[in-house]
Amino acid sequence: MSAIITLFYRMDLAFFVILTLLSGGVQAYDYLQPLPSQPQIPADNPQSKAKIALGKQLFFDTRLSKDGTLSCNSCHNLAAGGDDDGSVGKISQGKLKRSAPGLWNVGHMSVYYWDSRATSLETQAADHILDPAVMGMSSEEALIARFSAIPGYAKEFSNAFSGSKALNLKNIARAIASFERTLNTPDSRFDQYIQGKESILTKQEKRGIQLFNDVGCLACHFGGNFAGPAPGPALKMGDGFYELFPNHMGSHYDKKYDLVADLGLYHITLNPADKRLWRVPSMRNIVLTAPYFHNGSVASLEEAVRVMAKTQLQKELDEKEVMDIVAFLKTLTGEIPEITLPQLPDTEGLSLLTKN
Amino acid sequence: MSAIITLFYRMDLAFFVILTLLSGGVQAYDYLQPLPSQPQIPADNPQSKAKIALGKQLFFDTRLSKDGTLSCNSCHNLAAGGDDDGSVGKISQGKLKRSAPGLWNVGHMSVYYWDSRATSLETQAADHILDPAVMGMSSEEALIARFSAIPGYAKEFSNAFSGSKALNLKNIARAIASFERTLNTPDSRFDQYIQGKESILTKQEKRGIQLFNDVGCLACHFGGNFAGPAPGPALKMGDGFYELFPNHMGSHYDKKYDLVADLGLYHITLNPADKRLWRVPSMRNIVLTAPYFHNGSVASLEEAVRVMAKTQLQKELDEKEVMDIVAFLKTLTGEIPEITLPQLPDTEGLSLLTKN
Repeated sequence: MSAIITLFYRMDLAFFVILTLLSGGVQAYDYLQPLPSQPQIPADNPQSKAKIALGKQLFFDTRLSKDGTLSCNSCHNLAAGGDDDGSVGKISQGKLKRSAPGLWNVGHMSVYYWDSRATSLETQAADHILDPAVMGMSSEEALIARFSAIPGYAKEFSNAFSGSKALNLKNIARAIASFERTLNTPDSRFDQYIQGKESILTKQEKRGIQLFNDVGCLACHFGGNFAGPAPGPALKMGDGFYELFPNHMGSHYDKKYDLVADLGLYHITLNPADKRLWRVPSMRNIVLTAPYFHNGSVASLEEAVRVMAKTQLQKELDEKEVMDIVAFLKTLTGEIPEITLPQLPDTEGLSLLTKN
Repeated sequence: MSAIITLFYRMDLAFFVILTLLSGGVQAYDYLQPLPSQPQIPADNPQSKAKIALGKQLFFDTRLSKDGTLSCNSCHNLAAGGDDDGSVGKISQGKLKRSAPGLWNVGHMSVYYWDSRATSLETQAADHILDPAVMGMSSEEALIARFSAIPGYAKEFSNAFSGSKALNLKNIARAIASFERTLNTPDSRFDQYIQGKESILTKQEKRGIQLFNDVGCLACHFGGNFAGPAPGPALKMGDGFYELFPNHMGSHYDKKYDLVADLGLYHITLNPADKRLWRVPSMRNIVLTAPYFHNGSVASLEEAVRVMAKTQLQKELDEKEVMDIVAFLKTLTGEIPEITLPQLPDTEGLSLLTKN
């Protein structure tokens, strides 16, 4: 299935390249788009103020994890790029082997997890709560028993959702996803440029855009979120954009950065065709989410660009090319929205996490 | 020394009781005070906007910890009572055996740590960064080397402090302490009551105040922060208020809640007279900081009140008395100030925590 989708997008890309050539264009600017003003909102989870406010509380609530130590924000740190900044696996005490992807603009992705195994933010959030390697709640029943004991939440779930049993895993995930869909970073210098403010980018940054196309990066990192096709009318939500990584095996990077041990989507599907298939990550705010790759093995963006050129496109970039592309990527940092720390509903005078 | 100070305060209390009796008063309302509008500010660390803003960033910055997993906020969670909510030791992977004290109104304390070993917030913050059981930075040099590599901080330290080498451990601690001194929660229902709004408390809550005095709790938990003497003209900053806990050993609570294994201040001074000496904790926002005691062994405030009456005052409270005192303690929850999540200075395109 994923192979078919990959093929489909590659055909799409081929048409694009042919059309670009026919029209005499050398710049693939049609493939470059500003960040849409809003992510697509799923029909069964419309945004509401109450739901977003509830989702923000849940996002910061460590009681979602079995031992009360981890909130969503522990790994997707909204004070620092929306990711875990080099502490891969340490927060989860070695249980997680993958770097927490940056969360800004996540509503513009069409698949979730590095291995693209979830097709909605709602699924991703619900899975994380029950995953023994992440938050580790033993069951939905245990989760609901704990949260039912927090008086403030009962009221907020009733406000945010209809129905008598509003406090359930599905609605917890819906609220978190609704909050996450507000985490967008518009107005990057690139966005201003692509919308007509030509002078805002330097010559080097513009060379970087051209190189990003010419080298081949844009073939996968295209669209408003630079992560392949976004959900939209032409694509069903959940249709993802997978790529082989490494595409060309055998470079010294394979060993140096341990790039082939983790087989990506294959670990979920056990389908040999899915070996080393990964979601195309977004390039937006990419300078805020070092270290790079699914295993967080590469500390710098310069090196990540070198690795990608070699492993995906069999190209060796010279230092000027690397610096030009990085200069362009730095223009993709948007305006981070102001977030007020929520105050979480309290079980007054009682700890739910202590036996005695 | 601590024994002398304890004696001094007990004499102080004796005078108070005598004076109260002489004046015919039965209510110890002189010992009940509203939260002062501001904590005392040390002369060598005046507050400034730049320093507070910098301190807020540092407070939320996990790069203060060796492996990049812990910020101050990880254990003193400002979204949830300013403490660690029952996850004692788990955040530190078993290295810490004590519950993180709540942080609200911390500037009104005169000593720090459960065992009162630090006499300023600045010392506490600096110690935590280098403590192997907490943030575990190997040395001040390692800390400064890491933070010097974060361009945004260099500028902010220059703005907040004078001198050419503004980025040092002392100033990091000063900035964090300055931010912490803004973490005050005024206008609790109790504060409104004590300032004349008699009708704001229920009969039960007022009975609780009277009981809190009559049972003897107020002997230690007095003053604006209900934690003994605050720093002030009569007392030098750093003069603390220690108490034996358990004061009366031998109740079944000793074993049930493991109250005598940890010897408090003794572990620091090795002076036998300091065995089981502990700081008097604040009662403000006490319902937000379950579980209770230095080891977080008691889940509920009701039980904590029972334990304290027995171990400190050799009294057995009936259930009505317990509920009355708890009702009063619930009036001590103040207004939590709104905190905007800071955006931390970034090492753009580079992780400081990854080797490659």
